[in-house]
Amino acid sequence: MAARLLDRLNLCRMVGETAYGLVPDAALVLADGQIRYCGPKGDLPKEWHGLDAEGLDGRLVTPALIDCHTHLIFGGNRALEFEMRLQGRSYEDIARAGGGINSTVQATRQLTEDQLVETALPRLNALTAEGVATVEIKSGYGLTIADELKMLRAARRLQALSGIRICTTYLAAHTTPPEYKGRAGDYISEVVLPGMTAGAAEGLIDAVDAFCENIAFSTSETRTVFEHARLLGLPVKLHAEQLSDQGGAALAAEFAALSADHLEYLSPAGIAAMAAAGTVAVLLPGAFYTLRETMVPPVEGMRAAGVPMALASDCNPGTSPITSLLLTMNMAATLFRMTPEEALAGATRNAALALGLQNEIGTVEAGKRAELAVWSIEHPAELAYRIGFNPLHSSIIEKN
Amino acid sequence: MAARLLDRLNLCRMVGETAYGLVPDAALVLADGQIRYCGPKGDLPKEWHGLDAEGLDGRLVTPALIDCHTHLIFGGNRALEFEMRLQGRSYEDIARAGGGINSTVQATRQLTEDQLVETALPRLNALTAEGVATVEIKSGYGLTIADELKMLRAARRLQALSGIRICTTYLAAHTTPPEYKGRAGDYISEVVLPGMTAGAAEGLIDAVDAFCENIAFSTSETRTVFEHARLLGLPVKLHAEQLSDQGGAALAAEFAALSADHLEYLSPAGIAAMAAAGTVAVLLPGAFYTLRETMVPPVEGMRAAGVPMALASDCNPGTSPITSLLLTMNMAATLFRMTPEEALAGATRNAALALGLQNEIGTVEAGKRAELAVWSIEHPAELAYRIGFNPLHSSIIEKN
Ligand SMILES: [Zn+2]
Ligand SMILES: [Zn+2]
Repeated sequence: MAARLLDRLNLCRMVGETAYGLVPDAALVLADGQIRYCGPKGDLPKEWHGLDAEGLDGRLVTPALIDCHTHLIFGGNRALEFEMRLQGRSYEDIARAGGGINSTVQATRQLTEDQLVETALPRLNALTAEGVATVEIKSGYGLTIADELKMLRAARRLQALSGIRICTTYLAAHTTPPEYKGRAGDYISEVVLPGMTAGAAEGLIDAVDAFCENIAFSTSETRTVFEHARLLGLPVKLHAEQLSDQGGAALAAEFAALSADHLEYLSPAGIAAMAAAGTVAVLLPGAFYTLRETMVPPVEGMRAAGVPMALASDCNPGTSPITSLLLTMNMAATLFRMTPEEALAGATRNAALALGLQNEIGTVEAGKRAELAVWSIEHPAELAYRIGFNPLHSSIIEKN
Repeated sequence: MAARLLDRLNLCRMVGETAYGLVPDAALVLADGQIRYCGPKGDLPKEWHGLDAEGLDGRLVTPALIDCHTHLIFGGNRALEFEMRLQGRSYEDIARAGGGINSTVQATRQLTEDQLVETALPRLNALTAEGVATVEIKSGYGLTIADELKMLRAARRLQALSGIRICTTYLAAHTTPPEYKGRAGDYISEVVLPGMTAGAAEGLIDAVDAFCENIAFSTSETRTVFEHARLLGLPVKLHAEQLSDQGGAALAAEFAALSADHLEYLSPAGIAAMAAAGTVAVLLPGAFYTLRETMVPPVEGMRAAGVPMALASDCNPGTSPITSLLLTMNMAATLFRMTPEEALAGATRNAALALGLQNEIGTVEAGKRAELAVWSIEHPAELAYRIGFNPLHSSIIEKN
C-alpha cells in the first residue's frame, strides 16, 4: 500500500519530553499499517518529500482511543430497574420484577450469537464515533460454558464487522449463577475452568478476569482461576477493591496481572504491590458516578508510586450504562481530579499497557500501528473539558 | 402543505392519564405545521383514512426536546483554566493567566456577530442531534450595550440558520464587567437598562434574566432590572439560590417570573412562593456536577408542593461545558434522584412552561406544533438511563 503523508497538524504523541508529547506543525508518514515518521514537518526525511501531502488544517492528531474495560455484549437493558429504584421501590420489588445482574444473565442466555452481535453494534459504534479503535470486551453474562463462548465468539465477530480491534476477556468468574447458588466452588470447577480451557483451545480468549469482592468471589477462589489461566498461558486482570478492600490488587500483582480494575478501596499496600509488579490501575468513573460512590480511588497515592492509570467506560447495563470514553475522561477529571493529560494517557498509552499492547498502540511513535484520531480542537485539554460533545474530525486506521 | 400520517409507533404524549402519556400502537396526523391527530391507531378519524401511512417500525415518539437555559453563544473556551485547576494551580495563578468569566467576556467582545454564530453552531448541532428543537440562549458575556445586542442578533441568526426555534434572553445583569468594578449600580443604569430598551425595540429580547447571588447582583439590584422589564412588557427569569439562599426565588415569584433557575439552596419559603406564583424551577445538573456541588436542590419539597420542574443544559464555558440534554436527564436522575418520567417532563412539558410556550410545544396534543423526536427505543425510561448514547432515529419539525 502506498505511503500517506499528513501535514498541517498539531501532533499529540503521548510520549516524549513535552506535555502530552505535543509537536506543533508536525507531519506524519503512514505506510503498511504503520507509523513511519512522526515529528516536526521541518525534519521530514528526504525519502518522503515526494509524497503529496494531505493537509489537516491545523487539527490535533492523537493516538486512537482505547477502551480497555467493557461488558459491551449483553442482552436486554436495565432501564426499568433504573426507573423502579428512582421511584423508591424496594429491593424486594425490584428483585421480584426480575432486576439485578441475573436479569442480564437470563436475557443474554436467550439471545443467539447473531443477536448479541446485532444488539452490541450500536454501542460499539457510539465508542468508535469518538475515535476509539480498540475495545476490550468481557464475557460474564453467560455463566455456562456454551453461553460464555457464545459471548466471546460474538466479540470476535464484532472485530470483523467493525474493522476495529477487539480484545476478548473471559470473565466466567463474574458472579455465581442462580443454578449454582451457594456452590461457588462447584461453579468454578465445573464451568469456569473447563470453559476457559475450551475457549483457549478455540482461540477466543486474550485474557482472563474475575470479580474479587465480598458479593462475588474470594481471593482464594480467584487464585484458583488465575492458576488455571497461568497453566494455559493466558494473562490475567481483576475487578478488585470496588466495594471493599479484599487484597485483590496484591493478588493480581502476584500473578503479574495486566491490570487491576475499579480500586476505589485500594490500600497503600495494594498500591505498593501494583507499583512493584507494574500492574496497571484501570479506573472506571462511569460506575463510580452511577453508583453514587463517595470513596474516590487513591489517585494521588498511585500517582506518587508511579502506578500507570488507565481509564475505561466499564460499559455494562447495570452499574455503568455509558458508551462514551470522552465523557469517561471528563468524569475522571471532575470526579477523580485527574489532570486532562492523565485522562488522555488513561485512554491511550496506559490503556494499551492494560491490554499488553504497548508495543503496538497507545502512542504516536515510528513502528507503532497507524491508528490515530483527528480532532477539530486546538489543545488536547479540550478532550476532557467538554461534556457530551464530540469534536472528532475523523479516525485513521490503516491496515497492513 | 399535505397532511402526513405516521403509524406503527408508540406515542409518549407527556400528558394524559397514563405514565408518560403512553399510547401504544398509535397514529399521528400532521398538517400545516400542527399535530392534527394523536392517539390510538384504531381511533383514527375517518377523514384521515385516505392518507398513505409512513410506518415507524414500533419506534417511540416523544415531543421534541427543549433546552430552556443555555449560554450557548460565547467566545473562546476555558479548557486551559480547567486544566490549571486540576494541576492544583492557585486561584491567583489562574486569574493571572486570564481565567474566569472575564476571560469569556473578553473573548466574546473580540468576536464579530458572524464569528459568534460560527462558533456556536457546532454546540447547537450537538443539541439538535439529540432531538432538541427549541433552545433558549442568553446574552451576558458582552456586558456593553453593543456586545449584548451582538450576542442576541447572533442568537436570532442561529434560528434562521438551523431551522429550530431559538428563544432569546437578555442577561446583561450576569456579572459586573471589569470597567464597572465596584459600581454595579452605575452598570445597571448605564448599560443593563438602556441595553434592554434598545434590544426590545429591535425585537431581540424574548425574556429578561439576572444572576442574583452574593458574587453577582443583590435582590434590590435585581428588582431594578425586573421593574424595567415590566415597563417594557418583557417576562423575566432568574438565576437564583445557586450558591446561597438570597431569597431570589421569592422575588422571581413576586414578578410572576417564567422560571427561577439553579435553586440548590432554595428554602421552603421559596418553594411556597414559587408554587403560589406558578413559577417553574429550572434545574441545571450539569453545573452541579461540574462544580462538585454537594447541596442538591430540594426536589422532594418541590414535588410535594407541585412546583413544575424543568431541566436544562446551562451550556456555558465555565461551569457547565455540556451540550447534551440526554446526559442532563441522566444527571437529574442519578444526582438529583428525579424519576426518568420527571426528567423527560423536565426536557419537554415543563421546559415549554419555563419559556412561556406551553400552548405551542412540550406535549403531543392536537393543535400543538408538529415538533417530535423519534427514538429507536422501547420504553421512555431508556432516555434517562443511558449515558453518552444517542438513540435518536430522526427529528420531525414541520413548518407551516
Ligand atoms: Zn467491569
Ligand atoms: Zn445559567
